[in-house]
Amino acid sequence: MGLFRVIPKLLHNRVVMAGAAPRHQQVPRNALNSRDRTGSGSGGLRFTVVLSKFEENLTKASSPTRFPHAMETAKQNVVEVARRMHQKHGKAMEDADGNPTVQSLPPTAIVELIEGFKVSKALFTACKMKVFDVLRDEGPLSAADVARKIDASEGGTGQLLDVCAALGLLEKTEGGYSNTPLATLYLLSDGEYSLHSLIMTQEEVAWPFFSYLEFAVREGTVQGRRALGTAGEDHYQESFYHNREKKLQFMRAMHGHTKVAARQVSTAFDLSGFTSACDLGGSTGALAYELARKYPGLKVTVFDLPEVIEDAVCFQPDGPQTGQVSFVPGDFFRDTLPEADLYILGKVLHNWPDDKVHQLLSRISRSCKPGGGLLVVEMLLDEDKCRPLPAVLMSLNMTVLFQARARSLSEYRSLLQAHGFTDVRAVRTGTILDAVLATRA
Amino acid sequence: MGLFRVIPKLLHNRVVMAGAAPRHQQVPRNALNSRDRTGSGSGGLRFTVVLSKFEENLTKASSPTRFPHAMETAKQNVVEVARRMHQKHGKAMEDADGNPTVQSLPPTAIVELIEGFKVSKALFTACKMKVFDVLRDEGPLSAADVARKIDASEGGTGQLLDVCAALGLLEKTEGGYSNTPLATLYLLSDGEYSLHSLIMTQEEVAWPFFSYLEFAVREGTVQGRRALGTAGEDHYQESFYHNREKKLQFMRAMHGHTKVAARQVSTAFDLSGFTSACDLGGSTGALAYELARKYPGLKVTVFDLPEVIEDAVCFQPDGPQTGQVSFVPGDFFRDTLPEADLYILGKVLHNWPDDKVHQLLSRISRSCKPGGGLLVVEMLLDEDKCRPLPAVLMSLNMTVLFQARARSLSEYRSLLQAHGFTDVRAVRTGTILDAVLATRA
Repeated sequence: MGLFRVIPKLLHNRVVMAGAAPRHQQVPRNALNSRDRTGSGSGGLRFTVVLSKFEENLTKASSPTRFPHAMETAKQNVVEVARRMHQKHGKAMEDADGNPTVQSLPPTAIVELIEGFKVSKALFTACKMKVFDVLRDEGPLSAADVARKIDASEGGTGQLLDVCAALGLLEKTEGGYSNTPLATLYLLSDGEYSLHSLIMTQEEVAWPFFSYLEFAVREGTVQGRRALGTAGEDHYQESFYHNREKKLQFMRAMHGHTKVAARQVSTAFDLSGFTSACDLGGSTGALAYELARKYPGLKVTVFDLPEVIEDAVCFQPDGPQTGQVSFVPGDFFRDTLPEADLYILGKVLHNWPDDKVHQLLSRISRSCKPGGGLLVVEMLLDEDKCRPLPAVLMSLNMTVLFQARARSLSEYRSLLQAHGFTDVRAVRTGTILDAVLATRA
Repeated sequence: MGLFRVIPKLLHNRVVMAGAAPRHQQVPRNALNSRDRTGSGSGGLRFTVVLSKFEENLTKASSPTRFPHAMETAKQNVVEVARRMHQKHGKAMEDADGNPTVQSLPPTAIVELIEGFKVSKALFTACKMKVFDVLRDEGPLSAADVARKIDASEGGTGQLLDVCAALGLLEKTEGGYSNTPLATLYLLSDGEYSLHSLIMTQEEVAWPFFSYLEFAVREGTVQGRRALGTAGEDHYQESFYHNREKKLQFMRAMHGHTKVAARQVSTAFDLSGFTSACDLGGSTGALAYELARKYPGLKVTVFDLPEVIEDAVCFQPDGPQTGQVSFVPGDFFRDTLPEADLYILGKVLHNWPDDKVHQLLSRISRSCKPGGGLLVVEMLLDEDKCRPLPAVLMSLNMTVLFQARARSLSEYRSLLQAHGFTDVRAVRTGTILDAVLATRA
């Protein structure tokens, strides 16, 4: 069996199995027994099984392959166990006082956190300078060629391209640099699944706000004045609708962010029982079109502010599903909501404090007939509020930018139940948005 | 055998083994054969072996346990393969045109890069607000208690603490937040292996410089004026020696950065044949004391600028090795170098362009007797300059701050050989500094 071939490499080493299930205990036991039976002895082979506390709740849903899910689950198990190794296990890795040492708990874990901002900024800068667009059109290119095309220094460009290669965004060969599939899929400024505008909003808005994180934490307020020079707390959310280019960039950003997760979200639950849906704050229709594609019997109304709806036409895809999607302008806090079997709130509730959420849910509850549904599309926090990392970071982001936050399933459940929604259930899709479905009693 | 128990979970899934060695092909073959022999059939079990291109060159050296090395190697293999999965393997994960899809190449890889700056800034802010010091003295504490002690808002503090918990820096229980061993080891402001001052220099200097990365790449110059308001290129490296607090912070930063890697560096090569060493630019003596501890027969002279030497006494450790270490003030570009069998350049060469490196090596070469050694302590770039990521980021950092850069082994080899040093060999220690040893011909 396969493990035999590995055993010689494991001899005299510490072997840690990062498993989530108690039965993982059996694997090394079997290995040792089998090995003993071969007569070659098990001297020096020390197995430790550390049960991972990582909740294996990543995908479940609808990924056509389970590969990304299995890979991420395995990685999270290893990472979770590695972080705890020194705590209850691995005495040999502690110093005389029982404390972990630089050897057992290497500084690379901290350095990786320290260096995160350089990684982000290199990505943002490469996107802003349209490096990936240039390489799509004319790659592979040398650093000198790219520098000329983006009007930048050759030395600085070479460094930037090497970081992008180290991050798996570019491939570097003797012929020059070219985009990897990851860059082609997400980083071209006009790709179908482009995250380019999302990255530009991070560069132009989130970076300056996070530059003043200390003030935000200290004062508990949005640092609009320090970050962008705008007065008061209602900084850019109000102002960016007065500037069409900013508005379109934000719409493109949200479009990309929804679109890359739309398939998993639309298949998280079987929604084929619904014939009409209304996506409140549905913006460009990114989710609406995907729902229409998946459920040919579904008509979807996108309801959003007039200034959003007037530009939503820019995002219309090709395909028969466009006929199922219509756009209605309005303010979901004030105007009559379109009728529908299924209401959808995608990336809306994390923008608002509980009192505004209650207002909105109360209005939806009055429009929604018994048996109707409400689909909430959000990144879900675990109940302890400190997992998973992407949701925790999203929550911090919302606090820093809007004094808003992410929520856990039980928080959503109690908000929804307060307005007559029952049978509240969630699917963690494994991508960047999860789904919660509730039924109007 | 162990794998049997896993097989039912693998059925009908795509299984990818990310191996570095061709013999990994054998593992799934054996698994399939064994399984067939049991009569339970192998239907639905599809193995793909993708050979990792990751160079398994992480530690080799001297880690007392191989656990971090094995873990990192396995992780790098998986990551490397995952990045290429869509390229040459995994047709099923491509769309009709052969392009990778959002499902086969999830956006989470990009989102992780986007979010890096929030991770860094949360760490920096928690360190700056002394969260870990407060919890060391009085933890576990609730968010409200921590907020009171650091004089900050409760909401903002709670968010910050939850991010720290998500990052493995804090443990969150019903009793409140407490430091994990990782935080205790590296994030207390006065810990033996503290990286607190290093983090503060990143917060105060590197963050503002990286905020202007686009200008640095475009203009190919150091953005001192934009980042810190200082004129010219010789910004803070010159100026911080005029401000004792800044100087001490920088010395503490470099002290921590060297100290966490000093054991691996000092044991990368057997240096017991040397009786005297001179650490040029050796600052606080962080490496000198560790070399003295490891090699009781070695006398080490730390040679650095007078303004550094005058404060080096603050960093003297307890222990008999202090008697082996002495400090001599001087400028290695101008003053006579102390005599020694072994010269050491630790984190010096990456500060300087080739012409200055040649000046310095020429001076060392003249002082070094035939048979003497030169130990260069640096993070090594691979020959392709785009791996490993930490070295590539260090190189970008040096460019952005000083128009300097990291180098590969062959670059160091040719610099050293030009000054009469031969037998140039390297050890990648697996921690944040590597080691290169050369012999004076």
